[in-house]
Parts: sequence; structure tokens; C-alpha cells
Amino acid sequence: MAANPKFLAATAHVDEAAISPLPNSTKIYVSGSRPDIRVPMREITQADTPASFGAEKNPPITVYDTSGPYSDPAVRIDVRAGLAPLRAGWILERGDTEELSGPSSNYGIERLRDPNLAELRFNLQRAPRRAQGGRNVTQMHYARQGIVTPEMEFIAIRENMRREQYLAALKDSGPQGAKLAALMMRQHPGESFGASIPATITPEFVRSEVARGRAIIPANINHPESEPMIIGRNFLVKINANIGNSAVSSSIGEEVEKMTWSIRWGGDTVMDLSTGKNIHETREWIIRNSPVPIGTVPIYQALEKVNGRAEDLTWEIFRDTLIEQCEQGVDYFTIHAGVLLRYVPMTANRMTGIVSRGGSIMAKWCLAHHKESFLYTHFEDICQIMAAYDVSFSLGDGLRPGSVWDANDEAQLSELRTLGELTQIAWRHDVQVMIEGPGHVPMQLIKENMDIQLRECHEAPFYTLGPLTTDIAPGYDHITSAIGAAQIGWYGTAMLCYVTPKEHLGLPDKKDVKDGIMAYKIAAHAADLAKGHPGAQIRDNALSKARFEFRWDDQFNLGLDPDTAKDFHDETLPAHGAKIAHFCSMCGPHFCSMKITQDVRDYAARQGLAEGEAIERGMEQKSAEFVEKGAEIYHRA
Amino acid sequence: MAANPKFLAATAHVDEAAISPLPNSTKIYVSGSRPDIRVPMREITQADTPASFGAEKNPPITVYDTSGPYSDPAVRIDVRAGLAPLRAGWILERGDTEELSGPSSNYGIERLRDPNLAELRFNLQRAPRRAQGGRNVTQMHYARQGIVTPEMEFIAIRENMRREQYLAALKDSGPQGAKLAALMMRQHPGESFGASIPATITPEFVRSEVARGRAIIPANINHPESEPMIIGRNFLVKINANIGNSAVSSSIGEEVEKMTWSIRWGGDTVMDLSTGKNIHETREWIIRNSPVPIGTVPIYQALEKVNGRAEDLTWEIFRDTLIEQCEQGVDYFTIHAGVLLRYVPMTANRMTGIVSRGGSIMAKWCLAHHKESFLYTHFEDICQIMAAYDVSFSLGDGLRPGSVWDANDEAQLSELRTLGELTQIAWRHDVQVMIEGPGHVPMQLIKENMDIQLRECHEAPFYTLGPLTTDIAPGYDHITSAIGAAQIGWYGTAMLCYVTPKEHLGLPDKKDVKDGIMAYKIAAHAADLAKGHPGAQIRDNALSKARFEFRWDDQFNLGLDPDTAKDFHDETLPAHGAKIAHFCSMCGPHFCSMKITQDVRDYAARQGLAEGEAIERGMEQKSAEFVEKGAEIYHRA
Repeated sequence: MAANPKFLAATAHVDEAAISPLPNSTKIYVSGSRPDIRVPMREITQADTPASFGAEKNPPITVYDTSGPYSDPAVRIDVRAGLAPLRAGWILERGDTEELSGPSSNYGIERLRDPNLAELRFNLQRAPRRAQGGRNVTQMHYARQGIVTPEMEFIAIRENMRREQYLAALKDSGPQGAKLAALMMRQHPGESFGASIPATITPEFVRSEVARGRAIIPANINHPESEPMIIGRNFLVKINANIGNSAVSSSIGEEVEKMTWSIRWGGDTVMDLSTGKNIHETREWIIRNSPVPIGTVPIYQALEKVNGRAEDLTWEIFRDTLIEQCEQGVDYFTIHAGVLLRYVPMTANRMTGIVSRGGSIMAKWCLAHHKESFLYTHFEDICQIMAAYDVSFSLGDGLRPGSVWDANDEAQLSELRTLGELTQIAWRHDVQVMIEGPGHVPMQLIKENMDIQLRECHEAPFYTLGPLTTDIAPGYDHITSAIGAAQIGWYGTAMLCYVTPKEHLGLPDKKDVKDGIMAYKIAAHAADLAKGHPGAQIRDNALSKARFEFRWDDQFNLGLDPDTAKDFHDETLPAHGAKIAHFCSMCGPHFCSMKITQDVRDYAARQGLAEGEAIERGMEQKSAEFVEKGAEIYHRA
Repeated sequence: MAANPKFLAATAHVDEAAISPLPNSTKIYVSGSRPDIRVPMREITQADTPASFGAEKNPPITVYDTSGPYSDPAVRIDVRAGLAPLRAGWILERGDTEELSGPSSNYGIERLRDPNLAELRFNLQRAPRRAQGGRNVTQMHYARQGIVTPEMEFIAIRENMRREQYLAALKDSGPQGAKLAALMMRQHPGESFGASIPATITPEFVRSEVARGRAIIPANINHPESEPMIIGRNFLVKINANIGNSAVSSSIGEEVEKMTWSIRWGGDTVMDLSTGKNIHETREWIIRNSPVPIGTVPIYQALEKVNGRAEDLTWEIFRDTLIEQCEQGVDYFTIHAGVLLRYVPMTANRMTGIVSRGGSIMAKWCLAHHKESFLYTHFEDICQIMAAYDVSFSLGDGLRPGSVWDANDEAQLSELRTLGELTQIAWRHDVQVMIEGPGHVPMQLIKENMDIQLRECHEAPFYTLGPLTTDIAPGYDHITSAIGAAQIGWYGTAMLCYVTPKEHLGLPDKKDVKDGIMAYKIAAHAADLAKGHPGAQIRDNALSKARFEFRWDDQFNLGLDPDTAKDFHDETLPAHGAKIAHFCSMCGPHFCSMKITQDVRDYAARQGLAEGEAIERGMEQKSAEFVEKGAEIYHRA
């Protein structure tokens, strides 16, 4: 294949818009117990409270940062070189892996040798690694040995988001510091449905959750560029963004760009679901440039290798594909090993049959061969391969419902029980597991689905697509599904797979990717609040305070999408003056309820009393004066 | 004031895009017991199922239609003339109202006499009506007398959406009719939290719910153009769209256009929240052209009349404003009568104080006068006025939370209890009541809020804004709130007030109005499904079947927004051929899971057996043959 100029153009640089820091945001690194543990976070600077509201200092807010080195102006981004391998030293020092001479999969070797692919290929300067013979290099294996890895410490620091430092800064912010601290740290008790999240996450807690199988750290030894993160219901709810080309459209460069775009807005992991041309090379470019774990569905590529004929798939082809992808650095694999022969007929009378691509491929194979799939019969072999690279299972829900009618039916729940059995097998190999979930589920059935998953899968993390709560809104399925995602996240799902507005209609472009991520960041955060995740409400409180004090820029910048918030504001009141005005376009100056509340507080402040008390006293003792001075007790615009 | 050319241009016509019927949709009218009961509905025609899926006839689906005469090509729309007064005869024949000589409010008279307003004024050719002395003309009053009004019959027909006729058409659709009927009428049992929705709504059921106060029919005798609709938790969940100009922006013409745009996409009621210039005339144009009930917040206009000085408001000014608006035809009034003096100090230590405009106006008044507001002290007088025109109360939540921290606090719940007491007073006057609710509430507190409302307000319908489930996403609050709206709708809220993407940032334009409505139609429908509203799943089932059978146009047309769905599809596969292709851009032909399921079913069909049975038998008896014929048992693309 000749060089593709479009591809080259797209991969030679990253769009400036995708790498400039967000407004008033600074990349910071929090150090751990050793100098090479540097945990990236985003600090959002705030303005002081205006004098009329109390002139308080508002310390910066620290938020979780998935954007990797792209948002650090000190890092020179070169997509052709890839990201720095921050975990390389940790992997090496464990002394349980070996460097191979090159790819060990037949396909990997073949692609590397093909001179026609030279122009397409990412030029990686190191060979893949693999566990030394008989060794197990999974984070679960270390956790069960009682070892706290640097990855676990990194994650503990990351999940805490410098809450203690923020509290200290509030207290130190001036004479009203203690009161301010009490205000800003306020949070409603959650309803956690059995989740139990410590106020401070320790490295030991991370270790224990991974050892227990209740959380996973997707971290392939061949993806040392990844910044460690964790998926489990006793941690922040995470979101995944799907990208990938198809036989019909899109190029490698566009997919790399969608990945950087996804992580800029908060994607915690990215799945590359490519099914089109050059998926081996596309994946390599994505992984080398990704600071977040990458997931794939290996059966898609295996099917390409047999020209799309499901019944021609074999264990050998699949095995070679697994090794190929393990050695590239994929962090988790969706494997539909729970699609059993006896479950397939259960789908025949469904409204929408089998809608999972992987599920339908395996169903077709099972019927054609009249036996259980190689994914099921070779499950222990698969575990051994994944243990040698630390790839996590994402046990696929091949029989998930494709319409609300098909939700929680016999096919879906039978497969789920099988996934629970497979989880225990994987755990015997110390291989990390999460479980994929639906799909389309009306609200009243979501809790039941979550409860069954927790019970049948022994609390292995649940990773759900939506669910969509109705089927009647094509073009808006990011919303139909964000409703379900928020609920299932609250009930215990650890990671939410986004749905974009293009779901069921076409492939998402960059705008769709961002829209999907925004809907899912909202769902995940609403779930964190509802579960009572300690400190989850800090950002809500900070933004609400900024809103109340008419700190417009802070309101924009503390939000999930400062650009859109500012653009929307500026459509009606574009002038700079409007952003320091104590009213806005919705109501105008007379009607501003926040201004009126401010007037009430001002009155209290001038009396030198605590606010509530002041008003009470004012009303009890000074009513005559109140009426007389009617025009004076409020500030006039 | 001189004529405003922009205003004239905007009101002289309605945008063609807003009045052409939706694709494959036909306006139909279902007749009631008398010829002047003609209930509008929208019928969506579907294609036959392709031969490979069974060649079934798919009868048209009937959906609820809020768009009024605008979507009926047989009606000539003339915004200057207004809509036909379809209820005029019903109102007249009851013989309990009288025609006035003209407006009886001082303000109404003054505006009518002002020659400078001639060019701005809607030229109404009839005088307002009012109850004859001592008579009560509310739908609740009739209901309690045991009278089933034409409005009630209209509503019963409307809510049933021709489900029985659809079922009959399914059964008659061919040899597979009975099976098809069973498939298409499938629905999961709901979890209704005390709601109890009959399989068929009878006029008598409507009457009993209105008599009980559990539902309202907002239907001012001076808005005879309105098509009767009902708000109550034993009916379909409704949505409201807010429009209105402010001192800062927008014209009358734009507001009329936003109203027609709102109802096109499914707004069940529209609130005119104008606070800018000429709000009397703006309202007149909106009401005369609106087939849906119109709500207002009269205190906004009253405040304009005292130049924005809340403390200058008086009962007399407010009373005159109520009468002015009653005689224009406003169907429900938001009245913040629950903001009591003693509740105001409860807000001083909130994160965001008082965020309701009406609430803050009344709080300011209470503090300035150190007494209870005239809304509270004159509540019985207000009831008497509203009974004379049949205007419903929407008792305002002036102390609703403006941030998740402030949710379900003492101020909010104290006011809610007072609204419950006021409800009982209004009911003694046979005046219809709904109760407004928050606001900003994290998910784990939503159910509690709903339960308190049902208990304290004696099951009067709840009408909530959102609630927003997090504060961190300015620019996306249609989504933060659709999550909360779907839940509270499920738990029992009768009407959901939409939130647009511009919430907190600016005034919504037409795109924002549509985005807000879409998010809320989704939330309302998800709630109907979850409650188990009989037949709610019909549209989901029909759309899912169309999706599964690759009837692309039917999938678009059965959805809430055919235009957007089609546009999204066409971005990747624009050709007509693609819309009859049995695959799509997401996966391409090899990977299409629906195609594979189809292959499985095709096999079964060719064996002449029921599908599940066929596959079972195939697997049990013919495994050898299965493997041999591997390449033949599936259709190839």
C-alpha cells in the first residue's frame, strides 16, 4: 500500500485546539513516595469574591485530569514519537518480564515485514515485553502477594484529588476561613447500595480492592505510556469513549485525533473498535499516543483475518490475534466468552435479536459448528496469555438487549451468570476482570440488573453501555442513555461506556465524541454525588458559589466545558462588562433573584451579625424602621 | 410607540418549516360523542417489513400531538387572525358565563385605549367572558358536580392514543397478525409508586381525577383556542416549555415563533415569562395563536408596573394584573404564596440563597414590610378571581434550591408544607392546583422530595423544573436536569418544566428550545415506561422493530425528531441506496449483528418452524449437516 497523504498530514501534528490548556487551568503534578511517581492533576484558579459578597479568597480547585501530557505546555508533543513511557521503570524493576526480540504473533511479524506498510507504520524503537516463563505480572497478582505497586500509589493520590490541601487552603484563606471551609466542604449523605468509599484513598486500599477483584487497574506492560487509573465501585465512576474506523469510513489520523479529543474532555479509557483497513497500524498509533488505557474487541480483527466469515474463525487465529494485541499494549479485551450454544435460541423471539457485534459473530460460529465457542473452551488458555502481559478482561455481553423490551430477559441473564463463572476462573489465574452490561433497559429494571450483576459476578466491576431508557429518540441517545447511566452508576456500575448522538445512525465525528463525553461526565458525576463519594460535591459547591457571586468566568471555568458555557453566555451578552455585571441576560437587573438575595445578605452584613440571626433580629426588633427605610436597606443598581 | 417593522414581519406569517407536517405523518381527528369533539392526533405511516424478514404489514402508529392546527395542511394559518376557538361553543352552552363589554382591569383598559399601541396590538374581535355573579366555572367545580364536560371527554380520547384501533389493525394485518399483535403490545410491568393508570382512560376517570384534585385541566374560558389536556400522575407525563422576552433581548414575533416551535416538537404547555417591553401585547399574540395552555407568573408584570421596586407592590396592583391576565386567557398562574416571612431567614446561609425570581421579589417585599405577603393574606380573594375564569394555580416554589447543596432544606420544605395548606384552601373554592418543585437536587434526594410533596400537598399534581442532579455542567443543563426529570417523573411528577442548554447562561434561541424539549420528551417518556403507563412501550417497540428490519425511514419517522435522525444518518451514508441497505455505516456489511440475527431467523423460517424451536431442533438433530452446509445456511450479502 502506498503512503496515504491524508493519513500523514493527520498524524504529523496534533490540533492546537486539542492541546492548549483549558482557561485558567494549570497542569500540576503531585509527588508520591518516590520521585518518579508524579500524578497529573488540573488546577483551576478562581477570582476573589467581589467586595459586596465578602471579598473572600477562593483557593484553586483541583480536578481529575485524563488529558495526559497534551495539556502540559512544558511537554513537546510529537505524535510520531509517541508519549514518554512513564511506567517503564516500574515494569523493569519488578524483574519478572523479559524483552522479546520482536512481535511473537504471526500476524505481528507479517505486518512488520511488509514493506508496503512502511509509510503507515508507527516507528516504535523498542521490542515488546512478556512475563518470564511461569511468572504472572498482573496488578491483581501483585495485590494478592501484598505488594503495593507504584501504579497503586499513583492511583491513590489521583483519586484523592488534593482534597486535604484544598481544605487547608480554605482554612488559611482569611479571617472567614473556617466558615468558608465548612461551607465549601458541605455534602449530602449518599445512598451507596453497598459501596464503601473511604474519605481518603490509601495505596493499601487500592491494593485490597484489586486483590478482592472489586476493582481493576488496566495496565498492560506494553503500554508504559499509560497513567494508572482504577475501575471499581469504591472509586470515582469512570467513563469510556469508543472510537474506531469502519470499512465504510475514516482514517488512522482521524482516530488518533478522536482519542486526544476524548481524553481532553474527560474520557478515562478509550476503546478502539476499528473494523476497517489497517486496524493493526491504527491501534499502534493510538496506543503509543494514549495516556489512558486502551480497550479492544479482538474478535473484530480476527474476523477480518478470515474475510468476515464467522464460521471460519479458529482458536489459532484468535490466539494469534490476542498475542498480537497484547504485545502492542492493549490494556483490556472485550471477550464474548459467555455466548453459549444453548443461549442462542433464547434470542430468536426477541424484538431485536442479537445486537452485539461480537455476540452475533460468536452465535453464528456456535450454530455453524454446533459446539461451544473457542472463547469458552479455551478460556483458561486465554487467561494464561493475559496474565503474561497484564491485560484485563472485559467480559462481553454478547446477548445484551437491543431494545427496552429485550431487557433483563433469559438470554441476557443466562449469559451474565456464565460471565460470573468465568470471572472466578480468571481470578484463579490472578487475571483482572470487569463485566460488560447493557444496552437498553427501562428505568424500573435497572436496579434489578445491577443487583443481579453484583451477586452473580461476585462484585467484579460492572461496565455498562448506557443503558438507554427508551428507544424512541434516535439522534439523542446520548441523553436517553445518560439517564440510565446516571442511575446504574449510582447503583454500583464502575465505568460507563458513552453513547454519542450518532448511536444507531452513523459513526461519531469529533463533535459527537465531545457530546457523548459531556453527557457521560455528567452521568458519572451525578452518580458520585448520589453515592456520597467523599468530596464529590466540592466542585458543585465551588461552581454554585461562583454563580451566586456573579463570577462569570469562574462559573465557566469550573464547569465541564468552559468553551461552550462562555460561548452561550456571550451570545446574548458578549461584552466584557457583562461578565462582571451583577445580573445577566435571562432576567435583567430588576428581576435578578441572586441580586435580591445579595441585598438581603448585605443588610445582614452591615448590621455586623451572622446572617440568619441578623434577619431574625431585624424582623423582630426593627420592623418599624424596616418599613421606613424601605428604600435604603437594599443596594440599588 | 410607532410600528415595529421587525415585529410586523415576524407576526405576519409563520415559518414554513414550522408548519409542514413531519415526514410520513398525517393529522387525524378522532371523533367523540358529539360532532364538535374532534381530537387531533398524528398518525405515522410505516413501510411493510421486507420480504426477508417476513413481509408483514406494519399498521400506522398514532402518537400524541401537541402541534395544533399548524401541522394540518387543511388549515390556513393566519397569525393575525389567531386560531379557531374550538371550545367556544362548550363554554357558551354551559350558560354560566357572561360576555363583558371589554377588559375590566384598569391596565387592560388603559392598554386598549392607548393609540400608540395600535400597531402592536392583536386585533381581537370578541370581548372577554367571566362567570356570572356567584357562579364557579372551573373544570374542578363541574367534576365535583358529577358533570363530564366535553373537555374531559376530549382528554380521555386524547390520552388513549387509539391504542385499541392499533391493536385491531395489527391483528388484521395478515396471517401472522395475532403473533404480531402480541409482539408489538409487549410491555414490562411498571413500578408505579402509587400511581394507578387504567388501561383505557374513560371520560368518567378524567372527571374523578379532577374532582379529587389529583389532576388539573388548565383551560381558561378566555382561551377557547386551546385543545384540552390534563396534568396528573395517572396520565401521560407532560412537559412545559418556557419562552419570553427580557429587558435585554427579543421581540414579540420571536416569542410567538418560539411557541409554535415548542408545540411542534412536543411542548404540552408553554409559559410566557416575559419581563421586557410590551408584555401585555406579547401575551395576547401568544395566547391567540396557542393550541396549548399558557402559563404566566403575574408578579413579573406587576413588578414592571411599579418600576421594579418590589416593596412598592400592592394587592391592588397585583389584583388588577390577575384580572388583566384572566381576561386575556392565561390558563395557569404561578403564584408564590408560600414565601412566608419566617421562611426568609432560612435562606440566608444557603449556598445560593433565593434563586426563584418570584420568590426573591416576595421575600424582599416581606422583609421591607415586615408582614406576610398579599399573596398569602389575599389567597381566598385570588381563589375567587381564578374561579371566575377557570385559571389554575401553579403554586410557586419561591424558595426552591439553586444548588445541589440547598436541596430539600428547611426553607424549601417549609414552603412546600405551606403550599399544601394553600392547596386545601383553593380546593374549597373548587380551584384547580398544581405545585411547583425544584430546582437542583442530587439523585439520592429526589424520591424523598417527591414523597413529601405527595403527602404534604394531598396528591395535587407536582410540576418540577428538572431537577438538575449536578451543578458542574453549565451549557449542558438540559442533560443534568433530564436525568433528574426522568426520575422524578417516574416517582410521580405530572409535568416536567424543561431546562435548555442556555440555563444559567442566557436566553434560549430556537435551537435551544428544541434541544430542551427533546431532552424533556425523552425524560417524560422514560418515566411513562418506568411507571408502566399502559401502551407507553408501543412506540419503542415499533421503532425497535423498524430498526431491526433496517427500515431506516421508519426508524427516523417514529422517533421524536425525524429531521435530526435522518441528517445524522446521511452524514456518513447519504445515498438513497443506503437507506434500503441491510447494514449501516457503523459496522459495514460483515459485522452487522442484526444481519447475522436475521440469518439465524431466515434459517428457521426456511425450515418452516417456529424460530426458537427450529434452532433447537436444528442443533439437536442436524449438527453434522449444519457443519457441512456451513456456508449455505446463512444468506450472503
